[in-house]
Amino acid sequence: MQLPQPLRGIVTPLLTPLVSPDRLDADGLDRLVDHVLAGGVHGIFVLGTSGEGPSLSNAIRRDVIGRVCRRAEGRVPVLVGITDSSLADSVQMAQVAAGAGAAAVVTTGPLYMPVTQDQLLDYIARLAADSPLPVFLYNMPSHAHVFFEVETVEKASGIPGVAGLKDSSSQILYLRRLQQALAHKPEFTLMVGPEEMMAECVLFGLHGGVNGGSNLFPELFVALYHAAAKGDLAAAAPLRDRVLEISRRIYSAVSYGSSYLQGIKCAAELLGICAGELAPPYRAFTGGQRETVRQGLVAIGALPGATRA
Amino acid sequence: MQLPQPLRGIVTPLLTPLVSPDRLDADGLDRLVDHVLAGGVHGIFVLGTSGEGPSLSNAIRRDVIGRVCRRAEGRVPVLVGITDSSLADSVQMAQVAAGAGAAAVVTTGPLYMPVTQDQLLDYIARLAADSPLPVFLYNMPSHAHVFFEVETVEKASGIPGVAGLKDSSSQILYLRRLQQALAHKPEFTLMVGPEEMMAECVLFGLHGGVNGGSNLFPELFVALYHAAAKGDLAAAAPLRDRVLEISRRIYSAVSYGSSYLQGIKCAAELLGICAGELAPPYRAFTGGQRETVRQGLVAIGALPGATRA
Amino acid sequence: MQLPQPLRGIVTPLLTPLVSPDRLDADGLDRLVDHVLAGGVHGIFVLGTSGEGPSLSNAIRRDVIGRVCRRAEGRVPVLVGITDSSLADSVQMAQVAAGAGAAAVVTTGPLYMPVTQDQLLDYIARLAADSPLPVFLYNMPSHAHVFFEVETVEKASGIPGVAGLKDSSSQILYLRRLQQALAHKPEFTLMVGPEEMMAECVLFGLHGGVNGGSNLFPELFVALYHAAAKGDLAAAAPLRDRVLEISRRIYSAVSYGSSYLQGIKCAAELLGICAGELAPPYRAFTGGQRETVRQGLVAIGALPGATRA
Amino acid sequence: MQLPQPLRGIVTPLLTPLVSPDRLDADGLDRLVDHVLAGGVHGIFVLGTSGEGPSLSNAIRRDVIGRVCRRAEGRVPVLVGITDSSLADSVQMAQVAAGAGAAAVVTTGPLYMPVTQDQLLDYIARLAADSPLPVFLYNMPSHAHVFFEVETVEKASGIPGVAGLKDSSSQILYLRRLQQALAHKPEFTLMVGPEEMMAECVLFGLHGGVNGGSNLFPELFVALYHAAAKGDLAAAAPLRDRVLEISRRIYSAVSYGSSYLQGIKCAAELLGICAGELAPPYRAFTGGQRETVRQGLVAIGALPGATRA
Repeated sequence: MQLPQPLRGIVTPLLTPLVSPDRLDADGLDRLVDHVLAGGVHGIFVLGTSGEGPSLSNAIRRDVIGRVCRRAEGRVPVLVGITDSSLADSVQMAQVAAGAGAAAVVTTGPLYMPVTQDQLLDYIARLAADSPLPVFLYNMPSHAHVFFEVETVEKASGIPGVAGLKDSSSQILYLRRLQQALAHKPEFTLMVGPEEMMAECVLFGLHGGVNGGSNLFPELFVALYHAAAKGDLAAAAPLRDRVLEISRRIYSAVSYGSSYLQGIKCAAELLGICAGELAPPYRAFTGGQRETVRQGLVAIGALPGATRA
Repeated sequence: MQLPQPLRGIVTPLLTPLVSPDRLDADGLDRLVDHVLAGGVHGIFVLGTSGEGPSLSNAIRRDVIGRVCRRAEGRVPVLVGITDSSLADSVQMAQVAAGAGAAAVVTTGPLYMPVTQDQLLDYIARLAADSPLPVFLYNMPSHAHVFFEVETVEKASGIPGVAGLKDSSSQILYLRRLQQALAHKPEFTLMVGPEEMMAECVLFGLHGGVNGGSNLFPELFVALYHAAAKGDLAAAAPLRDRVLEISRRIYSAVSYGSSYLQGIKCAAELLGICAGELAPPYRAFTGGQRETVRQGLVAIGALPGATRA
Repeated sequence: MQLPQPLRGIVTPLLTPLVSPDRLDADGLDRLVDHVLAGGVHGIFVLGTSGEGPSLSNAIRRDVIGRVCRRAEGRVPVLVGITDSSLADSVQMAQVAAGAGAAAVVTTGPLYMPVTQDQLLDYIARLAADSPLPVFLYNMPSHAHVFFEVETVEKASGIPGVAGLKDSSSQILYLRRLQQALAHKPEFTLMVGPEEMMAECVLFGLHGGVNGGSNLFPELFVALYHAAAKGDLAAAAPLRDRVLEISRRIYSAVSYGSSYLQGIKCAAELLGICAGELAPPYRAFTGGQRETVRQGLVAIGALPGATRA
Repeated sequence: MQLPQPLRGIVTPLLTPLVSPDRLDADGLDRLVDHVLAGGVHGIFVLGTSGEGPSLSNAIRRDVIGRVCRRAEGRVPVLVGITDSSLADSVQMAQVAAGAGAAAVVTTGPLYMPVTQDQLLDYIARLAADSPLPVFLYNMPSHAHVFFEVETVEKASGIPGVAGLKDSSSQILYLRRLQQALAHKPEFTLMVGPEEMMAECVLFGLHGGVNGGSNLFPELFVALYHAAAKGDLAAAAPLRDRVLEISRRIYSAVSYGSSYLQGIKCAAELLGICAGELAPPYRAFTGGQRETVRQGLVAIGALPGATRA
């Protein structure tokens, strides 16, 4: 499917269901694709952070790309994360994505070697020149340790094939400056990662959200997106409260960095969507942590609660 | 070749000679191996940071491992960098290394996903269990954004197969605490990366240095190591001054992070050792930067200077 | 004047007009107070970051407190910044503030000595016990290198005398979590510093903004606050665009950290409000930088433009 | 007393004995001065980090300066910490120091307002112009959040009145580059803060150490300095081991940032040198923490141990 320019709405950063740390839950992946498409999302992003892309073996990555593109059947654009420490290997994965029918690829910039903004721009230019698909920038400094500064994005937007940016820095001032700097390029997509700030970003003109919670509750995120895009605060407020409540209950079961991923995969399994194993360096929640997530799902009404005698 | 326990002396973090960003200079690689072995180094570490390991394609990495192991012919142990964002792909590369006759593998811990110290230790345990070769820890926080805290190293040293640590954090207090914590494990190798502090580290008991400059001037580093290991300050002082002068002249031609790699590869080419191209995200020095390195080599007497009329 | 609980609306972080690095522009200070009160702001915060409080001598700080409290004549509450490296000196300044008739004091936590969250909470408890005025927390990690984590604020809100928090971290997710955690304490004031995100914060329930731009254009900020507080997006949007435009034109004349302060003081002088000198470590804009600010004021219609022949 | 140029040897960063958080232990302060002078130290630095200078009230700071200068009676130079957020107040404290007979003042650069290197150099130039005493730079990024880059120190060394630098960054590569850059200014003093790396720094040419442990064990540090300055490795090694053991036993009783200060003041009290209270934001060790320090002092032979049956 062709990439709309700009891409608008909710893009699901698809979880990669695993039955063991290195084996795909292929049926769960199909169910998950069906689930989010039934919920009305406007795109799917595989092998991002929520998809544990960088943690998966090269073989599983290829498998995921093929399966999701086939299952989506062109109903929504599929974006493919190709972040890697090696540009050559990123380009190779972009070719796999193109062959499978994906609409675009997504990169955080190079892992490992630190880059100046000039080196980052040069890297993006080399990637865009060699990639058969449009390239999205993914500003993810907490994981990739690269930051796409406003001026760099502005310059990158002039490179043929560079189509948009997803920001996961949580810095709303940065997004404001990006919007100002790119006001003259309405076809350049600007999306926000953290779902807890999606509503306010869309209210003031961003094109949408790449929000992990849409793996679990796609209708909710699509409804919130539409309310915000119309400027309907009254409709948006309770939906946004629900998004915040999900975040608090499901992603914060423990207090360290991996708890979002562990929480959302645990919830996906408890909701019967797909298997909940994680790739190294992480492990699935067990015991009390799993119970905390289960109780969270009960509290938000996503699972039936136990009857108290 | 078997891995000495501990490994002592100078281990060269071997450059990966490239004729273009994605093509190996195979003859240059052979020459470089011969050059450092002729200089007396005690080990070779391929695909580290100096070797641009993470920036190279999977195919080139495999090629480098095979060629260096063959050329070294068991004269010194070969260590192989397997740092990756995917544990499965790291293990696969460890198997390639074992098949080629390498002595050990080296990891910074996982790229991309942030880890707590517990998750880091768990990752190392999983890697050590699946690796056919002994594992060295590589503390490289500036690039890998993982830090092996003293307590984590102490615990990791008890995992079968974990053989040592190379520190490139430049934090001498950290090395002191590591030495104290591991005093009861004399077979656990502790080496230092930055060559500018190798002498003082070896003077006070570290096992050696993994120093990039030994690609260019192996005899100098071997001599400094021996002087420091014997506590011969009078012999060490002028050698150390020379190491500092090389660092100042060759690695600091420009003021940003990549200038070490650009400077040393430029120097290797100017000295006729091997081709000096770099893998993305970096590029080889040209023009004035190259001239600065050339003048640096003249100043330290490694290249003949122009006659002045 | 008594402190409303919560305090709502626009609080001006008052500039400290200086005729030389260590001499107050006392008349300019009076004019500035009149200017912002005429514009309808709901409070004044002296000796904050915009007021260069920590950079001023103890003597000037005392002078500013007395003059502003006298000039405000109880029309709006005056908050006084007492951030210092010494708790004893902070308490002494709180006593000066109480004597002058101020409504509250504001602290970032201690400068210099690093603190754990427990130590920070203990510090706040000691300050609140000794301060004759209610205490506001000021989350300003970029300058104070202290971060008030959500749990710490929640605990601090239970200490008698701790009245609210101003956040200048620009982290909207943090503000969301604060709102959730303090939902049961409606009298605890939550305000946002960066004016570029004030509208969206107030739209979703924050009590107001402590926004530097209200020194220059108080009516604009008051109008935007009211539009956002009513959820009137149509009215808010053009006002917010104007706020963003001011930020881009006036505060970003150069690209380093001090340009906000240098830009706003330069603009205040060019607009005839007060003298524009800065306290060390900064200096007033001159030459081209000053001209850039002047052109920015022309572009936003705040100064008449030159007629072009 | 005149300041030697360079100043060589051990400078004690003097603890400020407190009987309560805001009351000086004046007798303890006299005893402490006598103790370190009896141990042979070459200078005294009051109101540094070990002296909790920034945490003390202005009144106590003045008291400390006067008392220590009187007690030292010109036997060694007294350096005075004047770090503050306000340049005007730093200059005022420098005048107090000059009036009391101190030899130099010491600054980390300004607290609170972030500075570029150009702004930092400008700040130092303004301070040096207004200070009646020579100025030492104090590179203390962990607390002051200012870093004196090599080029800035080189430029600052050309400002009349700037006499030297104490580095507490623990970055040995930085010290090496400073030594290279200042090789042509042999009168510019270069000292190292962390005592765990003093020996290796002096072995390779630094002028000495400003080491907290010399409050407790001045002879040990003076002996280690002399051994290192002579290049006598055999003599230095056991002394250095003892310094490392003290650090491990006394300063690391707990794992957070303040444990050095809490540990050393607790030890000073247990050894009968002076009272051990701390200024806010810290508190003295009690209970188990105090017992841990006591046992550490027993283990290193500084306190008699319990007889074991």
